[in-house]
Amino acid sequence: MNKSIVFHYLSKAMLIGASLFLLPALVSLYYSETDTALVFLLVAVCVALVSLPLTILKPKNKQMYAREGLVIAALLWVLYPLAGALPFYVSGEIPSIADAIFESISGFTTTGATILSNVEGLSRGMLFWRSFTHWVGGMGVLVLFIAIMPSSSDALHLMKAECAGPQVGKIVPKGKNTARYLYIIYTALTVLTAIFLLFGGMPLFDSVCHAMGAAGTGGFSIKNAGIGHYGSAYIEGVITVSMFLFGVNFSLYFFMLIKRFKEVWKNTELKVYMTVIAIATAVIMLNIMPIYNTIGKSFRYAIFQVVAIMTSTGYGTADFCTWPMLSQMILIILMFVGACAGSTGGGFKVQRFIIMFKSAKKYLKKLIHPKSVNIVKSDDKTMDVETVHGVQSYLIIYLALMMVSMLLLAINNKDFGTTFTSVVTCINNIGPGINEVGPTANFGHYSDFSKYVLSFDMLLGRLECLPLIILIFPSVWRKSF
Amino acid sequence: MNKSIVFHYLSKAMLIGASLFLLPALVSLYYSETDTALVFLLVAVCVALVSLPLTILKPKNKQMYAREGLVIAALLWVLYPLAGALPFYVSGEIPSIADAIFESISGFTTTGATILSNVEGLSRGMLFWRSFTHWVGGMGVLVLFIAIMPSSSDALHLMKAECAGPQVGKIVPKGKNTARYLYIIYTALTVLTAIFLLFGGMPLFDSVCHAMGAAGTGGFSIKNAGIGHYGSAYIEGVITVSMFLFGVNFSLYFFMLIKRFKEVWKNTELKVYMTVIAIATAVIMLNIMPIYNTIGKSFRYAIFQVVAIMTSTGYGTADFCTWPMLSQMILIILMFVGACAGSTGGGFKVQRFIIMFKSAKKYLKKLIHPKSVNIVKSDDKTMDVETVHGVQSYLIIYLALMMVSMLLLAINNKDFGTTFTSVVTCINNIGPGINEVGPTANFGHYSDFSKYVLSFDMLLGRLECLPLIILIFPSVWRKSF
Repeated sequence: MNKSIVFHYLSKAMLIGASLFLLPALVSLYYSETDTALVFLLVAVCVALVSLPLTILKPKNKQMYAREGLVIAALLWVLYPLAGALPFYVSGEIPSIADAIFESISGFTTTGATILSNVEGLSRGMLFWRSFTHWVGGMGVLVLFIAIMPSSSDALHLMKAECAGPQVGKIVPKGKNTARYLYIIYTALTVLTAIFLLFGGMPLFDSVCHAMGAAGTGGFSIKNAGIGHYGSAYIEGVITVSMFLFGVNFSLYFFMLIKRFKEVWKNTELKVYMTVIAIATAVIMLNIMPIYNTIGKSFRYAIFQVVAIMTSTGYGTADFCTWPMLSQMILIILMFVGACAGSTGGGFKVQRFIIMFKSAKKYLKKLIHPKSVNIVKSDDKTMDVETVHGVQSYLIIYLALMMVSMLLLAINNKDFGTTFTSVVTCINNIGPGINEVGPTANFGHYSDFSKYVLSFDMLLGRLECLPLIILIFPSVWRKSF
Repeated sequence: MNKSIVFHYLSKAMLIGASLFLLPALVSLYYSETDTALVFLLVAVCVALVSLPLTILKPKNKQMYAREGLVIAALLWVLYPLAGALPFYVSGEIPSIADAIFESISGFTTTGATILSNVEGLSRGMLFWRSFTHWVGGMGVLVLFIAIMPSSSDALHLMKAECAGPQVGKIVPKGKNTARYLYIIYTALTVLTAIFLLFGGMPLFDSVCHAMGAAGTGGFSIKNAGIGHYGSAYIEGVITVSMFLFGVNFSLYFFMLIKRFKEVWKNTELKVYMTVIAIATAVIMLNIMPIYNTIGKSFRYAIFQVVAIMTSTGYGTADFCTWPMLSQMILIILMFVGACAGSTGGGFKVQRFIIMFKSAKKYLKKLIHPKSVNIVKSDDKTMDVETVHGVQSYLIIYLALMMVSMLLLAINNKDFGTTFTSVVTCINNIGPGINEVGPTANFGHYSDFSKYVLSFDMLLGRLECLPLIILIFPSVWRKSF
């Protein structure tokens, strides 16, 4: 592996990371939280002081392949959240190191699981920081890096390592421009969400924080009761639509901008995504009708929760643990499904489910008609064997990692539902689980060891496992191959 | 599809099925349960009367391919348990049709899940019949058919459709002889188990029933407290060893008979199977030590339960629902793993896990060294792409079916652990789950609809999904293709 190029990119990316702390510092100053502002400035200076001298070292060798991209992504996604945990810990607002790291990783990975029982007790600056990590992590720290940095020849390797889904394509010929377009669309949609929330009477600070949480499909709320706090059907509606939009493959927005509507209309993943949401909402609505009495109210709670879970946002307006098991089971299954590939959402991704379903169907057909030639197609494009094999291998790795995590978490001796959904919700970057980690509960009761396990799961989920796993292969670290 | 050959084989196999009822009839007579004996004879005559005239019709076309084998297996595995449910229902010992069908399918598929809260209330004949269905279902009704019938040209297609594991090989050149050898080894091991149990002071009837349950890796006990009823470390030891042996690939016994010990010694699946049992036992033993105080007692309960679950037998000596969550989680994961391919055990099979693990490892290596050529090997034999793809497709189908079953079962509104493990334990042909379907509980509390869903899951698990699934493809039923 070309260590010098990895080192080079890491130090530069950390410098950008240092600058991120300036925004919450300004927010703190605006709300006269001088102490909090100082904490952010102090952290910014420290991170900058460490990384600035390192950026001066020029890489001896500029060669870069997929593996360098994966290693950079893996290390950066450890360094960013660790730096991001500093403000929580240094300010004393989250006095435990394990808790601060959990909260920071949960933020950057857009999971939204919290260890805090009283979110409203945090300072404004810290609340903003939590939501801001969602926004940065949603589109990706490397995508941000590529969008900002002048050189861009290695852009695609870096983007591939961080972006979600079985296939990452450039939407415009240059990787760098792709990253810029993505951030422009992302920012525009976030601002729009915040404006719509403002219209609903949500205060400016709340609107910005919740818009960033929806954009990154994160789920941190700044209220203990989540979005339910506002009790407004309009606000819930805006957030539902916003979460839905951020769960769509971003290249479709690009196609809409250049007026290639046919590509959007014919997109199989979008159709499946919408169909699953519609069916899940309908079933849950009927299932929870006895609790909420009216169709309107049941629909409102059902669609919000379905979209919140499927897009891996995890915002809440109701405690779905009090719903019947059928509704809970649907939500748990949606946790696995996740959002569309190329969106900010987590989970296994709709696109992968489509590929798996199609390849299994092909397999069955082959079994009945041994002589037939079947090829797996997706949106009229033939899926090559490598892609299909990649999805299947990913499934196996993903299941194996979940299994190990569940075993490690079982040491806490909590009930099966809690143990199982803690892992599922963290590795899929959702937020809430059921029972002791339900929407009204939090992860604070877990041991430090379990918090580290779950933090690692969140990273695995956000990076889709591979970058972190290949770090354990000794050959990756060898100088030449 | 060649319907006439399917029809031909089905009617012949049902005739053999009719003769199976004679054995429990004799047992009933021996214990002076005349009414029960009459029920068995009546059912035998009815089944014979329906199938006998049909066997006279000769197939117009003797062509037979894999799909005909799969269809025969699927239909036979529906017909056999339906006929097998008749004695339960007709005798009135299980007065509900859904219950009788559940119990019969649970028997033939060697699941061992019961709807009975008081097993000891059944007549001797019926208890024998329950255990006997395990024995017949364990090695397979088609294997029995092949072993008995004079013609054997289609033997391999039939065996492939019924036998477990990713690859079914003939251990001797002729499929028919393979089936005979399998039954000889199977019978010998069963008799040995019964003799060893007799030595431990277990009554003859109990010994035979429990030996058949262990042989088929079934799990129906004739005592409410299961094997724990006898409170004997010796008996538990014999059954542990017996279950372990029936969870091993039967071709290894054949290799031992022809003195090819090297093949046994080098078998990767056997090594993994033993290693998993050893590790799981060690961890559970340490985990339950605070409950049982001594190492000896903890070891005794741990190894019995690990082997009982991993081989998919499901016998019990302790209520593992009272064990810490770590032990329960290990057992739940072992439910998925299952026994070795080519054994009577259920689950996903150790062999498939090995193939999946190896192919995932290959995928990761390819990611780091794009130019390397990696092939998946198993026991020095290169696994062809088709086998690997088959295993991965099977995983997807298996997970999808579990997901649908869990949704359907969730309608009962039981807790997550109960709902989840009910499906897992049935589709993997184990027996007990946790919470409301734990070792001391039963499945009687489920709705009839749920019992049918779980019954279908048991069939899916026993036939490894494919034969039943291809029935829904319309093209299978078309006359020619």
